[in-house]
Amino acid sequence: MSGKDGRRRAIIINVTPQIENGRFPVKRIPGEEVVVEADIFSDGHDDIGAVIAYRKDGSKTWNERAMTHIVNDRWRGAFVVRETGLYQYTLYAWVDHFSTWQKALHKKIEAGRDIVIDLQIGLEMIAATAKRIRSSDRKQLLYIEKRIKEEKDTATAASFALSQGTSNIMTRYPDRRFAKGFEKVLRVRVDRKKALFSSWYELFPRSLGPGNTHGTFADCEKTIPEIAKNGFDVLYFPPIHPIGTTHRKGKNNSASCEPGDPGSPWAIGSVEGGHTAIHSQLGTMKDFKNLVRKAHEHGVEIALDIAFQCSPDHPWVHNHPEWFLTRPDGTIQFAENPPKKYEDIVPLNFESENWPELWNELKNVFDFWIDKGIRIFRVDNPHTKSFRFWEWCLQEILAVNPDVIFLSEAFTRPKVMQWLAKIGFTQSYTYFTWRDSKHEFIEYLTELTRTEMGEYFRPNFWPNTPDILARALQYAGRPSFINRLILAATLSSNFGVYGPAFELCVNTPVPEKEEYLNSEKYEIKDWPPRKEDSLAGLMSRLNQIRRENAALQQTRNIEFLRIENDQLICYLKIASGDRSGPMLIAVNLDPHNTQTGWVEVPLEKLDITDNRPFKVYDCISDTAYTWKGRFNYIELNPHIMPAHIFSVHTL
Amino acid sequence: MSGKDGRRRAIIINVTPQIENGRFPVKRIPGEEVVVEADIFSDGHDDIGAVIAYRKDGSKTWNERAMTHIVNDRWRGAFVVRETGLYQYTLYAWVDHFSTWQKALHKKIEAGRDIVIDLQIGLEMIAATAKRIRSSDRKQLLYIEKRIKEEKDTATAASFALSQGTSNIMTRYPDRRFAKGFEKVLRVRVDRKKALFSSWYELFPRSLGPGNTHGTFADCEKTIPEIAKNGFDVLYFPPIHPIGTTHRKGKNNSASCEPGDPGSPWAIGSVEGGHTAIHSQLGTMKDFKNLVRKAHEHGVEIALDIAFQCSPDHPWVHNHPEWFLTRPDGTIQFAENPPKKYEDIVPLNFESENWPELWNELKNVFDFWIDKGIRIFRVDNPHTKSFRFWEWCLQEILAVNPDVIFLSEAFTRPKVMQWLAKIGFTQSYTYFTWRDSKHEFIEYLTELTRTEMGEYFRPNFWPNTPDILARALQYAGRPSFINRLILAATLSSNFGVYGPAFELCVNTPVPEKEEYLNSEKYEIKDWPPRKEDSLAGLMSRLNQIRRENAALQQTRNIEFLRIENDQLICYLKIASGDRSGPMLIAVNLDPHNTQTGWVEVPLEKLDITDNRPFKVYDCISDTAYTWKGRFNYIELNPHIMPAHIFSVHTL
Repeated sequence: MSGKDGRRRAIIINVTPQIENGRFPVKRIPGEEVVVEADIFSDGHDDIGAVIAYRKDGSKTWNERAMTHIVNDRWRGAFVVRETGLYQYTLYAWVDHFSTWQKALHKKIEAGRDIVIDLQIGLEMIAATAKRIRSSDRKQLLYIEKRIKEEKDTATAASFALSQGTSNIMTRYPDRRFAKGFEKVLRVRVDRKKALFSSWYELFPRSLGPGNTHGTFADCEKTIPEIAKNGFDVLYFPPIHPIGTTHRKGKNNSASCEPGDPGSPWAIGSVEGGHTAIHSQLGTMKDFKNLVRKAHEHGVEIALDIAFQCSPDHPWVHNHPEWFLTRPDGTIQFAENPPKKYEDIVPLNFESENWPELWNELKNVFDFWIDKGIRIFRVDNPHTKSFRFWEWCLQEILAVNPDVIFLSEAFTRPKVMQWLAKIGFTQSYTYFTWRDSKHEFIEYLTELTRTEMGEYFRPNFWPNTPDILARALQYAGRPSFINRLILAATLSSNFGVYGPAFELCVNTPVPEKEEYLNSEKYEIKDWPPRKEDSLAGLMSRLNQIRRENAALQQTRNIEFLRIENDQLICYLKIASGDRSGPMLIAVNLDPHNTQTGWVEVPLEKLDITDNRPFKVYDCISDTAYTWKGRFNYIELNPHIMPAHIFSVHTL
Repeated sequence: MSGKDGRRRAIIINVTPQIENGRFPVKRIPGEEVVVEADIFSDGHDDIGAVIAYRKDGSKTWNERAMTHIVNDRWRGAFVVRETGLYQYTLYAWVDHFSTWQKALHKKIEAGRDIVIDLQIGLEMIAATAKRIRSSDRKQLLYIEKRIKEEKDTATAASFALSQGTSNIMTRYPDRRFAKGFEKVLRVRVDRKKALFSSWYELFPRSLGPGNTHGTFADCEKTIPEIAKNGFDVLYFPPIHPIGTTHRKGKNNSASCEPGDPGSPWAIGSVEGGHTAIHSQLGTMKDFKNLVRKAHEHGVEIALDIAFQCSPDHPWVHNHPEWFLTRPDGTIQFAENPPKKYEDIVPLNFESENWPELWNELKNVFDFWIDKGIRIFRVDNPHTKSFRFWEWCLQEILAVNPDVIFLSEAFTRPKVMQWLAKIGFTQSYTYFTWRDSKHEFIEYLTELTRTEMGEYFRPNFWPNTPDILARALQYAGRPSFINRLILAATLSSNFGVYGPAFELCVNTPVPEKEEYLNSEKYEIKDWPPRKEDSLAGLMSRLNQIRRENAALQQTRNIEFLRIENDQLICYLKIASGDRSGPMLIAVNLDPHNTQTGWVEVPLEKLDITDNRPFKVYDCISDTAYTWKGRFNYIELNPHIMPAHIFSVHTL
């Protein structure tokens, strides 16, 4: 019962977006809008005014944007973020006595009541406002006051008090003495554009050598132009560090390793060094830096894989045994998922007495590679490391380097995947890999884009990875590879492929598993040269279409369209805040048979008059069709091309 | 990065119930359960342990209840509150290394792996636990340790380590060094039973005099036995304070008042006094106290109407003009809803400079009547007074008098009605009065009982009030009065009637309005003596059924049953935590025609074997039926009795 609080009558609750009550920021890229909603009301029946206040972190001044009432005491407003880094936002609401007075005056006039005293009440408010303000508006307000005061005819005075001009100026300077502020300041993390729009290509550099020889960074440099030509802007490598020899895995994850087997790159660390060293067969740090530079020249960024686990030969195991679990027999506990054993790997113990040193050392790994020019990290299995560590580490790094992107490689339970995105990962692997039916895709995309997840979880769709040869790819050959590729690249603005195996439609699994037989994880592959039937050309085309159409550079803008065929999935994407055209995508999910159907086009969203024909241009096949009305015919033969990617044009 | 926090790996989020992030308590009565759920998880794949900790406010010790995993990282637990007042609750969660170890050991044994070292790891945990604990369990744990250690046969040692006995004792003493506490302490307000189960009867004491003379508290005393006989336990009076004479309203809300017109009791205050005075024609404070005592002897509590508004003659207007809005001409602003004027009433101004004094004075009104023995207040239009005032006032009062009940008389927008319940009102008027169809009832009850509202909003169902003669009552006479009465008394455990007019089925409205013609608000009524066709007998019966059946003393336990007739509504109520029988209610919503249908009875919830007959006993008509199977026939003639209230009995 102190201060002015008792007179602050407005209530502001249920503010969205708000991740974990404001503990974590929502995510945006420059130019994107933050749409803020809240339940705002007060006692009685007075009018309410409300604004969003926002600013860049560290800025001294707040900007404001008006909120408007939608329905049922729900209010909405929006602001646009422009720069990378953190923004803050909060809300203010107050009882608007002047607007309340105007409405009452209007009703009293209509009822023929005497309004002489009422006009005086309004004049007092106008005078008080004029006294408060300094700008040129003051002069105008004083003029309005004078006009009303001196006007002999009450009706004329009233119409002046109710005029749009009076309303405008009074709305600009509301009496906010008793304004109530929302009790929290919420935040937006603004990442660079690539956080939302990126095309990833994964390869093992060691497979790039001639024949079966160990590839090098120099070999990598030679492939950069081709990767750039195919339109990828992120080239991601599995770990490039020295590989342990103790319990090294052989081909096909065999527990016994033959001479010459290179081992899994995820068994990190040897006498050569650990997470800040380079596997010597790949080259030197100088070679690496050259490669990063060369890639940069071609518009390609190198992404490193950060896997916080060690081979038993890692220097940390010797220098910091307290960072690991020691068994009663004195040995270090290796990784296991009973009854499976992973003896080539020892996990870190985040309950170590020495956890602060461990945290610092792990963060140093990122800082080391950031210093070498790396700005994108794919983090291996982050869900098996302490969440508190990630929350701290990612925030610390982003505070200094807001352009760093972290991709969370967690394939685990929904709430855990969400949590990793909340605590700071920029992008996330998803369940896309295991979604097959039209219903599943629509349900999953709806969850990703229409729920709170859309505010903080940026999906990155991968049809395959070195760990996963999805069942959908195993049985139907090339048409299934093409439909998964087009789905990944058009459903989500972030997508990636484990490239060589995908381009060549490699689809032989370990029997009964979703894993590659003779996986590149355990051996050097000599991929054959790409022939005409490789998917490289289609990838290049797809990435070009993505680059040229802003609608495909967002994910939350998707809207599924009705088409009465369960094998045909159709969706519309319209770029918000951009004048580039709408995109209408249709994919045949059946890799065997031609499917046909009539898609319902929401003409009103495309500004197309009901009976006017319009043009859809298929960016894949370079052909145009003239459509008319709400229902239009689609026919897709998977053996020719299982999809259309149409840009839509009014005629 | 300080303290132990870095090793606290568990995450606790999305805790329910939690009203406005814990700003407000949930509501219960003694004996009710609080079911708490949360998303709880940690990194990795280790087992988790979690508890609810709770205590009465002011108690030094916390009690704990284990939580268990339901599905998808959602956990649930529950505790029961026993005493009125505030309770606190919070959660703790931790990684359970022993249970994780047990599961791994089990899998390793199945896989035939050597477990000698693993047994040692378990032994270390058992020894550490024994060292920590003091009770007799310590001895048992030391014995377990010895047995495992000395056992030569590994398999036998392992089976001992995995035994239920070992699990039980280790689960009782988990290693909680790195337990994570939920960051908030949440609260429960435990009200007395009448907060959840009450039967209200509203009358105007001034109409109880012989003929058209002004009734008195002494007249009231005489009606107490009848009200008690009819089973009501709350007798609620419109304001009993002196009524202003300035701009007093005449009959039918007329702006001009005739000599002898008594005025609206809501135009509070005259030279005789204000909110702490008694209208002299009703009697003295001594008479009032006598009445309260007499009612108490009959198990009836008097509820007062607190309406924070004044007649222009109220002492506050003279003594504290600063608590009101003064117009430029020096007059006090009367109430208005333009173009309507309420000149017999002036509203308080909660933006008064002197708001702290005003708040104190208003709270004093409650304290004054509490001192006179009143514990139930029906608060008039609380939504037109400052929410911050109510939040403060109700909390202050309940802190001293936890047995006080506040009924919020707000018929306004949903979020405002919810807010009043959140900030402290014990019960709330509802939209029941305007719900007509089966679909509307089911939808509304589902909202009240199955959403978060069930945690804090206690509905009180009124088929009529002196302000509202619902349309449903205007056209169909007695059958519609009976079906609304039975719906109110069985859908909701709190219900009330504006009694005399309801008993007599008075249904003449002001034309085109939902208001009573010749409303008792503006005149003294001489209600005729109750004849056989009054509803008093049915009310008595209904209240008896409610008293005898615990299932009708709760609201959230409702479950609607399928019956393929839109005019028949059926629902089942089973008392949680009570062995009294289930109640099955069927109401014919059509006041004109007999309706029939087959109700689907969920036998599994009634512990009835599919093919065994069972008995349903109609508590209204005193007749029994034998039913069998899931589908049973219902036929209700509204001109005889439009409802069954069955108690269900297995045979």
